[in-house]
Amino acid sequence: MKLAPLALAAATLAGGAHAQNEIIKTVATQAPDATETSPDGSLAVTVKTDDNARPVYSITRRGKLLVAPSRLGFIFTDAPKFERNIQIVSVTHDKADSTWTQPWGEWRQIRDNHREMRVRLRETTALHRIVDVVFHVEDSGVGFRYEFPEQPNFKHANIGDEMTQFALAEDGTAWWKPAFEWNREEYLYEKTPISAVGTAQTVMTVKLADGTHVALHEAALTDYSAMNLARAAGTTFRAALTPGSGAPKVTRDLPFNTPWRTMVIADDAPGLYMSHLELNLNEPNKLGDVSWIKPGKFVGVWWNMIKGEWTWATGPKHGATTANVKKYIDFASANKIPGVLVEGWNVGWDGDWFGNGNAMQFDQPTPDFDANELARYAKGKGVYLIGHNETGGSASHYDQQLDRAFKFAADHDEKVVKTGYVTDAGQIERVDADGSQHREWHEGQWMVNHYLRVVTTAAKYKVAIDSHEPVKDTGLRRTYPNWVAREGGRGQEYNAWIGGKNPPEHEANLVFTQMLGGPMDFTPGVLSLTGSEGSAIQSTVAKQLALYVALYSPVVMAADTPENYAKFPDAFTFIRDVPTDWEDTRVLNGEVGDFVTIARRPRTSRDWFLGSITDENGRTLTVPLDFLDAGRTYTAEIYRDAPNTDFKTEGRHAYAVETKRVRKGDTMTLVLAPGGGQAVRFRAR
Amino acid sequence: MKLAPLALAAATLAGGAHAQNEIIKTVATQAPDATETSPDGSLAVTVKTDDNARPVYSITRRGKLLVAPSRLGFIFTDAPKFERNIQIVSVTHDKADSTWTQPWGEWRQIRDNHREMRVRLRETTALHRIVDVVFHVEDSGVGFRYEFPEQPNFKHANIGDEMTQFALAEDGTAWWKPAFEWNREEYLYEKTPISAVGTAQTVMTVKLADGTHVALHEAALTDYSAMNLARAAGTTFRAALTPGSGAPKVTRDLPFNTPWRTMVIADDAPGLYMSHLELNLNEPNKLGDVSWIKPGKFVGVWWNMIKGEWTWATGPKHGATTANVKKYIDFASANKIPGVLVEGWNVGWDGDWFGNGNAMQFDQPTPDFDANELARYAKGKGVYLIGHNETGGSASHYDQQLDRAFKFAADHDEKVVKTGYVTDAGQIERVDADGSQHREWHEGQWMVNHYLRVVTTAAKYKVAIDSHEPVKDTGLRRTYPNWVAREGGRGQEYNAWIGGKNPPEHEANLVFTQMLGGPMDFTPGVLSLTGSEGSAIQSTVAKQLALYVALYSPVVMAADTPENYAKFPDAFTFIRDVPTDWEDTRVLNGEVGDFVTIARRPRTSRDWFLGSITDENGRTLTVPLDFLDAGRTYTAEIYRDAPNTDFKTEGRHAYAVETKRVRKGDTMTLVLAPGGGQAVRFRAR
Repeated sequence: MKLAPLALAAATLAGGAHAQNEIIKTVATQAPDATETSPDGSLAVTVKTDDNARPVYSITRRGKLLVAPSRLGFIFTDAPKFERNIQIVSVTHDKADSTWTQPWGEWRQIRDNHREMRVRLRETTALHRIVDVVFHVEDSGVGFRYEFPEQPNFKHANIGDEMTQFALAEDGTAWWKPAFEWNREEYLYEKTPISAVGTAQTVMTVKLADGTHVALHEAALTDYSAMNLARAAGTTFRAALTPGSGAPKVTRDLPFNTPWRTMVIADDAPGLYMSHLELNLNEPNKLGDVSWIKPGKFVGVWWNMIKGEWTWATGPKHGATTANVKKYIDFASANKIPGVLVEGWNVGWDGDWFGNGNAMQFDQPTPDFDANELARYAKGKGVYLIGHNETGGSASHYDQQLDRAFKFAADHDEKVVKTGYVTDAGQIERVDADGSQHREWHEGQWMVNHYLRVVTTAAKYKVAIDSHEPVKDTGLRRTYPNWVAREGGRGQEYNAWIGGKNPPEHEANLVFTQMLGGPMDFTPGVLSLTGSEGSAIQSTVAKQLALYVALYSPVVMAADTPENYAKFPDAFTFIRDVPTDWEDTRVLNGEVGDFVTIARRPRTSRDWFLGSITDENGRTLTVPLDFLDAGRTYTAEIYRDAPNTDFKTEGRHAYAVETKRVRKGDTMTLVLAPGGGQAVRFRAR
Repeated sequence: MKLAPLALAAATLAGGAHAQNEIIKTVATQAPDATETSPDGSLAVTVKTDDNARPVYSITRRGKLLVAPSRLGFIFTDAPKFERNIQIVSVTHDKADSTWTQPWGEWRQIRDNHREMRVRLRETTALHRIVDVVFHVEDSGVGFRYEFPEQPNFKHANIGDEMTQFALAEDGTAWWKPAFEWNREEYLYEKTPISAVGTAQTVMTVKLADGTHVALHEAALTDYSAMNLARAAGTTFRAALTPGSGAPKVTRDLPFNTPWRTMVIADDAPGLYMSHLELNLNEPNKLGDVSWIKPGKFVGVWWNMIKGEWTWATGPKHGATTANVKKYIDFASANKIPGVLVEGWNVGWDGDWFGNGNAMQFDQPTPDFDANELARYAKGKGVYLIGHNETGGSASHYDQQLDRAFKFAADHDEKVVKTGYVTDAGQIERVDADGSQHREWHEGQWMVNHYLRVVTTAAKYKVAIDSHEPVKDTGLRRTYPNWVAREGGRGQEYNAWIGGKNPPEHEANLVFTQMLGGPMDFTPGVLSLTGSEGSAIQSTVAKQLALYVALYSPVVMAADTPENYAKFPDAFTFIRDVPTDWEDTRVLNGEVGDFVTIARRPRTSRDWFLGSITDENGRTLTVPLDFLDAGRTYTAEIYRDAPNTDFKTEGRHAYAVETKRVRKGDTMTLVLAPGGGQAVRFRAR
């Protein structure tokens, strides 16, 4: 990738834009139209300047306009904006086709086959500032970012907001959750016309009138504020950066690059999931040897707390006692579940910690929690503990303890730590060295940096991080593979509470929205289907099992209690069997918010696992078993809804387990109950 | 209005909430429901705390829920938010019924008949901060504001945003324009379901499914940032304050009050216009004697510029030459039009002034503009000049010149100065005393203060202000009567340009949206119906006349050129006759964005004037002449569309003038052409 001298000019202009080899176009006088296509030619991105000399980009798919001319640019809090009076001074093209390996993931091998176009924008007015826009175009979507190169008149950027637009060329349906509301990211998904979206968080997924699916998001969000999508009118969205406590939403010294703004584009919902654009736009692993990161399931001293039967605070109902935890260790060990999460184990929970975690001490266990003894006991049972650092949103207080928190975790063989930032949006406590107090947003630049500080500090101690109340996932697991999972949405915990139970469609929304960004710690497997005070969870037993395949995470909880699992020995077999790390993944069918069926092959066997889930509607899905190895016989161990199963009635508890012999080329019929699902292990013979 | 000691408690709780006399309720333990009703009992506002001890208010109309429980509160950039753990510690009620006089306006007398409720909110947590919410309830709507009293633990508020919600209880239609877009306020109105609004500026007008009309806005916006309405999901809006260059959107020392958040509520669109809530919520005149403020029409050296035939810059096509201006003075004098606006008269226009007005000198005329001679000449003709200060958005540069700018205006007998801030949103140049550079928004706190600084400085010199690219109008003309008009929307100037002509519905939108906030300098009266290069304006001649009544402003331009007016002597008679100051106003009919008919009585005669305008649809309206004096005969001088008039064809130029004798009790039939209108003078005999 090189920038041509201006002299090259028109000579290389004609014709060559889509050639196989790297080509260079540069025009000194008349601004060129800059166009790049995807490797298969289906997607084309064009950058121009409009009548007001404002740069705009547009995208076509198979020749049809998908993204109408959309602005590029920035406003700053202390300098003129970069948007008008812009000239395209050079356009360079590049391409690459490579394959890389995930240390853990849904796929072992990831292909990155893309074309790239760098468009250099320069102001014609006094400052002559330069910003490059770089487009990365795959067959499955487009990413672009701004790159601010080193230059004489532009040393520091105080960004008030981005002017970046996404002008969808036609209306359709959008699945989205609102931005800037008090409860951070824990909202159910709205399904509305695109033209009725308010201000949305990303991932926002849309299905245009012509059936094309687009997932709007960002990749590689570091040292920048998270992007939301504000709809002005019609179907045009504008980047709306998350605020911080400071005047600019982003403050950076040049040179720097923004995160990638991404649009995954496909014919259908499964196609969105099968794209690797998000990961490809993140940088390779920066942690070196990461063999110490171990995907796996875990149980935990948690569901009884979230249900209100045990407490995080010390006292007669304290959950994290040495005796309780030993029972969970025994249970995990007996069922080959490697991890045991313990919450409420440390000093700081006694009092009002919501939004105020300044009493939390992440290396001081409560007196009834014998950390050394439990570490020893767990190790003897082949199990490790998962630590828990709940900050109550007091991020600076946590920053001050990071090293000793993770030293404590490492000293006690905790391979994963779950973090928490339970406070309302905009209420993160930041205290600077000078004692000044600030209130930050979970997804603002300061917190984006905080989360990564936690992850990289943890890596020094060989600890993996499962962030709750996190910044959204933008594929950074590629670069920092110890960032194994996040919450960042409505998990199963809502099903513990009397009010606000997740509706059956929720997980079929998650797969095609939030989880396009990365793994979610949803905590499936509540086979009792019962929250506090006996309240009914709107699911079926078979669906709880299917979630282990449908909702990908390298660390997955078996969220119910040992006592409850004892009541379902046959169903629990699937939870014991299902792995959390995959060689290959295929999304066999699906519609956003309606249903999805995913098949995955473990890294360690020739088996396949299948999970199929539906919304409030029962449905029958026919699945060709094309993913199986040719010539091999499999025993399908099927965990399915029974004929009378229905999430709305006591029949939700009904399920059936059966086996069937199948081969590649067979077709399987999945009968899903209303609110139900089906889980299958294809055991290779 | 008093606050009771806490001891009074439950004794006064029962029953008295709606009594005629002032009553006081205070509850120390159980938070009371606080309710206030409008004088006629149709509207009721209730404040409670919800399960999370968050304060919410709701509004019913005739017993039906209109605004569902909606949050109240604030987030701060440097302190915990004020929203949870809130207790209602006292509720006081008050009422008043008075009438006050406008020095100029749509009505001379304004009745303010309201009930008031003050709800004191106090935190139960450490800081024990106190905020009062004060509701002002009229029959035509509700206003409320937050009052931050003096208190020990709360000396300064750095407001990140308001949590104030407006949860409309049902869907319907909304008329709105987008907030935070590049072009400030100059957008056409969107008409969408309420549930499809993005982020809207106020005034936003909605018509609920049951027909109820609500206009959401604010009143008395001073030393605070303007409020926009962000829709999260459904029909719930949240206050979204305009940003500034600083970290907080608003920064204030306690004690202070916010602007009033207003909801004008009516059965129909005319009912919205007839409300005086907006003005009643502003403070009385602070300027003392304002008899020097003279409402009136004006012509100007302008239309030929905006059309591109003359220039603001000096040179061969310079508009503001002594000779040209004398012609306009002659024309104004001959037609009893008191004002002559001149743009481009001062040093600073030669160069790129858009977004950069640092060359502007507001007391230095160009060499071809003899200011002293013109002032003398105008005075001799009974005419005054209207000054023009275009800042190009360089507000600090203007601040430095304010005194000499208005001294120059006063020295040259300019009774009005039109100001301008032509730059993109977020691009106002602010330079502090220390030389630091900032970029501000037109409607942020700093600019809100700037505009008022301009107005109060102008008042010292007895100069009135007509702000272009202003902050929106929130009724401050009551407090500062020299703030006579603003632009703040798409005016007729868009009709000068080839692209972007206003559609016929535009003015019927303006009346029931922006102009509920106050007078707009729309510049009607382009009888030639022709913009640059002969481009057609989407109007009829009769509609251009009708706009003088339909669109209220105390200063109104006759925007076309003297040469063009010479071609329409009969139609021009109406422009010569129509006054700009009114004793009484009646909105006879109307639907937002479709049509409106308004009758107004001048302050100086027994005449009435009527203006009726329609959108792209022709329509026949029947108007009972109930507003005329009983027993008096009137000659109706009618300026109407002809049978073949149509804005879409050359027929748009066709009109008819006729007279008719009418009396109170008669009915008049108005036949409006597509895109047309009708103007009537009822001359009292």
